[in-house]
Amino acid sequence: MIVIMKPEVSTEELSPIINRIKRAGLDVQINHGENRIVLGLLGDPEILRSVSFQQYPIVDKVVPISNSYKLTSREFHPQDTVVDVDGVKIGDGSFVTMAGPCSVEGEEQIMEAARMAHAGGAKILRGGAYKPRTSPYAFQGLGETGLKIMRAAADAYELKVITEVMDEAHIDVVAEYADIIQIGARNMQNFRLLEAVGKTGKPIGLKRGISGTIEEWLNAAEYIAVQQNSNILFIERGIRTYERATRNTLDLSAVPLMKKLSHFPVIVDPSHGTGIWDLVSPMARAGVASGADGMIVEIHPDPLNAWSDGDQSLNEKNYLQMMKEVEVLVEAMQKIKSLTKGEIVC
Amino acid sequence: MIVIMKPEVSTEELSPIINRIKRAGLDVQINHGENRIVLGLLGDPEILRSVSFQQYPIVDKVVPISNSYKLTSREFHPQDTVVDVDGVKIGDGSFVTMAGPCSVEGEEQIMEAARMAHAGGAKILRGGAYKPRTSPYAFQGLGETGLKIMRAAADAYELKVITEVMDEAHIDVVAEYADIIQIGARNMQNFRLLEAVGKTGKPIGLKRGISGTIEEWLNAAEYIAVQQNSNILFIERGIRTYERATRNTLDLSAVPLMKKLSHFPVIVDPSHGTGIWDLVSPMARAGVASGADGMIVEIHPDPLNAWSDGDQSLNEKNYLQMMKEVEVLVEAMQKIKSLTKGEIVC
Amino acid sequence: MIVIMKPEVSTEELSPIINRIKRAGLDVQINHGENRIVLGLLGDPEILRSVSFQQYPIVDKVVPISNSYKLTSREFHPQDTVVDVDGVKIGDGSFVTMAGPCSVEGEEQIMEAARMAHAGGAKILRGGAYKPRTSPYAFQGLGETGLKIMRAAADAYELKVITEVMDEAHIDVVAEYADIIQIGARNMQNFRLLEAVGKTGKPIGLKRGISGTIEEWLNAAEYIAVQQNSNILFIERGIRTYERATRNTLDLSAVPLMKKLSHFPVIVDPSHGTGIWDLVSPMARAGVASGADGMIVEIHPDPLNAWSDGDQSLNEKNYLQMMKEVEVLVEAMQKIKSLTKGEIVC
Amino acid sequence: MIVIMKPEVSTEELSPIINRIKRAGLDVQINHGENRIVLGLLGDPEILRSVSFQQYPIVDKVVPISNSYKLTSREFHPQDTVVDVDGVKIGDGSFVTMAGPCSVEGEEQIMEAARMAHAGGAKILRGGAYKPRTSPYAFQGLGETGLKIMRAAADAYELKVITEVMDEAHIDVVAEYADIIQIGARNMQNFRLLEAVGKTGKPIGLKRGISGTIEEWLNAAEYIAVQQNSNILFIERGIRTYERATRNTLDLSAVPLMKKLSHFPVIVDPSHGTGIWDLVSPMARAGVASGADGMIVEIHPDPLNAWSDGDQSLNEKNYLQMMKEVEVLVEAMQKIKSLTKGEIVC
Repeated sequence: MIVIMKPEVSTEELSPIINRIKRAGLDVQINHGENRIVLGLLGDPEILRSVSFQQYPIVDKVVPISNSYKLTSREFHPQDTVVDVDGVKIGDGSFVTMAGPCSVEGEEQIMEAARMAHAGGAKILRGGAYKPRTSPYAFQGLGETGLKIMRAAADAYELKVITEVMDEAHIDVVAEYADIIQIGARNMQNFRLLEAVGKTGKPIGLKRGISGTIEEWLNAAEYIAVQQNSNILFIERGIRTYERATRNTLDLSAVPLMKKLSHFPVIVDPSHGTGIWDLVSPMARAGVASGADGMIVEIHPDPLNAWSDGDQSLNEKNYLQMMKEVEVLVEAMQKIKSLTKGEIVC
Repeated sequence: MIVIMKPEVSTEELSPIINRIKRAGLDVQINHGENRIVLGLLGDPEILRSVSFQQYPIVDKVVPISNSYKLTSREFHPQDTVVDVDGVKIGDGSFVTMAGPCSVEGEEQIMEAARMAHAGGAKILRGGAYKPRTSPYAFQGLGETGLKIMRAAADAYELKVITEVMDEAHIDVVAEYADIIQIGARNMQNFRLLEAVGKTGKPIGLKRGISGTIEEWLNAAEYIAVQQNSNILFIERGIRTYERATRNTLDLSAVPLMKKLSHFPVIVDPSHGTGIWDLVSPMARAGVASGADGMIVEIHPDPLNAWSDGDQSLNEKNYLQMMKEVEVLVEAMQKIKSLTKGEIVC
Repeated sequence: MIVIMKPEVSTEELSPIINRIKRAGLDVQINHGENRIVLGLLGDPEILRSVSFQQYPIVDKVVPISNSYKLTSREFHPQDTVVDVDGVKIGDGSFVTMAGPCSVEGEEQIMEAARMAHAGGAKILRGGAYKPRTSPYAFQGLGETGLKIMRAAADAYELKVITEVMDEAHIDVVAEYADIIQIGARNMQNFRLLEAVGKTGKPIGLKRGISGTIEEWLNAAEYIAVQQNSNILFIERGIRTYERATRNTLDLSAVPLMKKLSHFPVIVDPSHGTGIWDLVSPMARAGVASGADGMIVEIHPDPLNAWSDGDQSLNEKNYLQMMKEVEVLVEAMQKIKSLTKGEIVC
Repeated sequence: MIVIMKPEVSTEELSPIINRIKRAGLDVQINHGENRIVLGLLGDPEILRSVSFQQYPIVDKVVPISNSYKLTSREFHPQDTVVDVDGVKIGDGSFVTMAGPCSVEGEEQIMEAARMAHAGGAKILRGGAYKPRTSPYAFQGLGETGLKIMRAAADAYELKVITEVMDEAHIDVVAEYADIIQIGARNMQNFRLLEAVGKTGKPIGLKRGISGTIEEWLNAAEYIAVQQNSNILFIERGIRTYERATRNTLDLSAVPLMKKLSHFPVIVDPSHGTGIWDLVSPMARAGVASGADGMIVEIHPDPLNAWSDGDQSLNEKNYLQMMKEVEVLVEAMQKIKSLTKGEIVC
């Protein structure tokens, strides 16, 4: 940690702060700059972070050096982590598609959605049985019934299942039916939930918070990883910005950035990332080209009558068209990787 | 709900959409504008919201008319709601201060903090026993032990207690020791937790989400209110913006705006709102002047050694000074209210 | 324009507002909703916008229907506009690269940069002679000298020139040397400058403002277009968000969205969009895949010693590698377009 | 400047970077941390900033120490600067109100507005003759005619005049009629315009940019100050955030923060800060309590028929009521200042 003094602070004035540092068992290096003194502090990171240097009127700025996440960092684990979802590998250089409706609405709908997903080449079925809804009066999901019929639909088309859990009480039942447990954007910093899903050992799809920073996202993954669960998938789903012409702003630069800072795979969600169905295909293509390991996309047999997120869901025709486009880009990315003998930047 | 067609769409082209509307059991009024047709839709709001009009290529824009929250709205309950916290009234025109450390750290610290809080005129002791921390390696709170010693400290100085609950599992124990249960910013849209605290019937301090919109905040309160709990306090704690010179951007316009749209009291948090101790007093003063019903502020007997949030905590001297300033402004606001015979704008 | 009344407002209470509307020469349709009256207003859009309906206490919300931009809209000009930059066509389905240093620093540097740009396949040389710098003490550009040596370098390698103009006083000299005049992000709403560059008839590269909305950007283009200049290129360069791990957040969804709403070409700037050199290639690739008509990228013979923006500039090796990757994706996009017989979604 | 290496980088690997630093004529201190090396760099700040350390793969982070603004800083000028506007002092502990319409619309309107402004106790008349408008089809202001009639109206009621200049071409004429030249939010980083108004020597009202950071705002003032003009007023007018329930988010914490970092007075604009007339009074009050030196507020004899910004303009009754409230708070703030013998925190 670096502590920068205000200009013209003298060595004598440093005494209280130096004493405080030593009392905390930390080492200190004193550097004399142009017109400022700068302290370099050494010691246990958690102790470093616990001292409130900003309270000293002579302090100008405090700069942390080390990150608080460890297991999640690329430094800790230089190779890419490949997450194995009951045989479907994510992070091995392939591009995996997860597709399905926003909400599981009934047997026929989810079976039809699974058929569509499979027809387009998706390997994993998405669908919500427990739904986080802004209003208490909106449809909240079918619960366990929804999980059961989604599992049956997925099995009928040899798909894996990803679905969201919203609270600890439902972790067991979700874990029973799902192959990947999804943590929604609103729960990225629901720390007790992170710990609890971490303990299941199951693959976890960790969505970026609605206004989650890159650093908070990495730390959220650390809550899962410390439970000895390294089956983590980061899902970029767009962030909240001033721009409201789209539902969110899909931050595709997060793909190469997260892959630089961490070893876990990164998935993009062009549906929530835009909120508008005819922007989904272009952003899916861009997601492939950004280097993502897969995508999660909302499709529906009849988007006009979807119970939720109909505006951003693709119908069968548009979904199949998108998947053809994505396939062409996946091939192009393979070609690029061979060009660079795997040395592709980020 | 209003559905605006693209320019030059003809009446004939409307047939599919009109049929869809009628099948949903909704009424429709067709208006012919300059160069566009505009539909006015009537019927059950939840049905209205469930149709994905954006999927029709002839539709340009969809505008909802009614709000999804009801019990929380000023229209539903025109008078101010006064929340009674075991004898301390909030929302009755007075200004109530909640003060205390970020974290309960031990018996001595919390007892000393309670003494300070009381000395300054605070009526309610704040302090965290379950702490939401970005990193899993940071201090997570003392748990039930913390609750016990905070209760004892509060009782010693005749203070009420507000403290955060982070998951359903701890609601009972928190409810046992606390007078107000706080929902933290990261949990504003943890809907199951909102329902569960709603059921306790206790006063709930509902912090605005880190990037919560005014509308989402009102809807979050609705999740509590539908549990027949109308002891809700909105706490404005700053929102996340591009500006990082302060920890958050304290949105004081939310005070008059929330009081216009809802009947529940509004509290400001100048500590998290700024993150810098010497901005706390000015923002506390501004909070009073904006018309808030109270404030929640972080104080610490020894901020330099606080285990968390030391940078934004006030020491005794600065806290007492702030409380004197606040008192002068509270009196000024009383004078203003008498000037306007209670007709103060917002 | 639609004016939505508060609930329970009666027809009688409407009189003052109806009179006001009629005095303004506007037509009005009165619609009775579930528990609200909704007015549909017809007439001159500028008159509509000039009435302050929010001042009437009985009004809840005002919703504009028509956009304020016209010449810029896709509705006005359904076909794609192809901008011809002295023989280099932009917007015709090809992908055009503009490359060069942030600042023109000297003859040798810009000549070397032009050689690099050309070697990688760029058609247009970028470089700043008038530099907008946050601090008055930072290098402000070489001015006309810079323009001259950039022109010479571009001519030596058969490149066109794009460069920024910061104020009206320099438009003539910039227009003399440049093929495309760039309006920087800080000037997107410098309306007098927009009008003045519009009058030159030259191609204009209009960067999105630092926090420019899609709608403001379209209206900014309208200021140019009303000067009978339809040689406009939109340049998405990232927007300011809460996330500071990257310099800006590159909003690639703006590519398909702008192409849906307008007929002018869209260029992406992965250098300013990320601010970090090793994120530039992935975002360049993603830009191609999003459907952009070209990109503008910072390169430098010696980024370590660049006078500005060195952190985000590519050296020759990385630039040439990126251009190979981009070429593969451009081919893939051509294949996709042929698949869809030009009916590519966006 | 501090340059933090990645973990495990050895002293040997530092050679290229150390050589680079020495070639630039800078001094360097090498510190060995827990598992990282940290460099402290000394020398000319502009040279320091010009080296692109991020290009070295062994570098993790670069942290600037000194600010790029000087004349604007509190360190350079510890006492408050008092700006004298032809006899009206701003920054001397008083609270000065600037009031008037958004646009000057005609003789009668501006004369009536001046009468109102004066009746409420404002000392300065605001009003726009050159208007920055999002759309080219919107009213652009009366130009010099507007300036003339505003001057006449101000003189009739012994008011000073503040008005915006949008481009260099109009600086002379604006300077002829105005006492304070306003730089609008869209022009905070129009650097040539800042230099040009700086040269007039006139008081400059520098609005914060729509998404201007505190640091950019201070640097923008520096562009004026280096022209030997230290008659600068900062105007906080709200920033662009994700929240659209208000037009902008008024950042009142900027008041004490700017007063801490700089010596120039700070004015608040509750009209643009909220965009909604009935939020203006509460935010004006909060502005006083935050420690601002004055406010600028939109009033109109007939807001319903205002040519621009009618929604946020106060009519006479509401304006006079607000001024009474503000007066009570100004007195309260005087009392607070006397309590603290001028040692008021901020």
